[in-house]
Amino acid sequence: MRFVLGVLLTVSVFAQDPQFTKDDKLLKPENYREWIYLSTGLGMVYGPARESSASQNPPFENVFVNPKAYKAFLATGKWPNGTTFVLEIRASASQGSINKGGHFQQERLRYEVEVKDPRFPDNWAFFGFGESDASAQAIPKTAGCQACHSKNGAVENTFVQFYPTLLPVAKAKGTLKPQPE
Amino acid sequence: MRFVLGVLLTVSVFAQDPQFTKDDKLLKPENYREWIYLSTGLGMVYGPARESSASQNPPFENVFVNPKAYKAFLATGKWPNGTTFVLEIRASASQGSINKGGHFQQERLRYEVEVKDPRFPDNWAFFGFGESDASAQAIPKTAGCQACHSKNGAVENTFVQFYPTLLPVAKAKGTLKPQPE
Repeated sequence: MRFVLGVLLTVSVFAQDPQFTKDDKLLKPENYREWIYLSTGLGMVYGPARESSASQNPPFENVFVNPKAYKAFLATGKWPNGTTFVLEIRASASQGSINKGGHFQQERLRYEVEVKDPRFPDNWAFFGFGESDASAQAIPKTAGCQACHSKNGAVENTFVQFYPTLLPVAKAKGTLKPQPE
Repeated sequence: MRFVLGVLLTVSVFAQDPQFTKDDKLLKPENYREWIYLSTGLGMVYGPARESSASQNPPFENVFVNPKAYKAFLATGKWPNGTTFVLEIRASASQGSINKGGHFQQERLRYEVEVKDPRFPDNWAFFGFGESDASAQAIPKTAGCQACHSKNGAVENTFVQFYPTLLPVAKAKGTLKPQPE
């Protein structure tokens, strides 16, 4: 029993596929900082609920994807089931140590996760995590993130147009959706 | 263990240690985008040769480190021989797709590499790569990057003060140098 528990723990902490509770809550992806980095935005303005870039220190947003999905994307230009994106939101600062201008990253404020899994309507679901959350329920399909990703994502529900190392792959594989102007 | 195995498998095709020519030129690190991401700055102003953040679209700078060095740092707060940092400089843009403000990343402009290896004076050396360079000679020790990293790096010659996930490790391990004000 002790052995089985040990194995389960090992798998649940380090598994690359998203882990769910019985009622389909997503468990916090603990080790996403060791996944594949895709890109960073600073104060991007692309939706109504976002912080304005007019702020002196707008947030940074770092995007990571699980290595298994990344490798599949390089090979096919498509996302497999189990694809997990993490959007990590961090505070920014301008003055610190020897730095006198521009922006560098500070503490994590929160993170949001997007998962491709057939248990969800349209296969894609979104989850928001605060610092103390161990799991999160899918954000209702009516929320803005669903509608915007579905309408504007360059490949399926994902913003490959903002990931400079993946965009050429999608172009080469012919998996880009027609873009709205 | 499962995680360690996973990482080993991931990088098995690519050597993690820096590769040199017979005359100590560093070979281009091809797969650094699959290394560990540390942080991103936008238009940071910390040295005389840097682009000014006053520009409307200052460059992004992404920092990656090889997984082997990252794991050693998590365990000890220090960098082992073979540590390889990549500073990737990318153009930024504000308008594109659905984005109307702030900044997102565009094409790579160049990248710079810092290596810890006993073949170099003071163990640390810097290399600049343009898009077509297959290898690069170490930048002379008299250059600004050497002096600034040596004087201002929070841990050895590295700017751990700007890497929010590593700074707490260095604090816990007691490896932070006293900081100039």
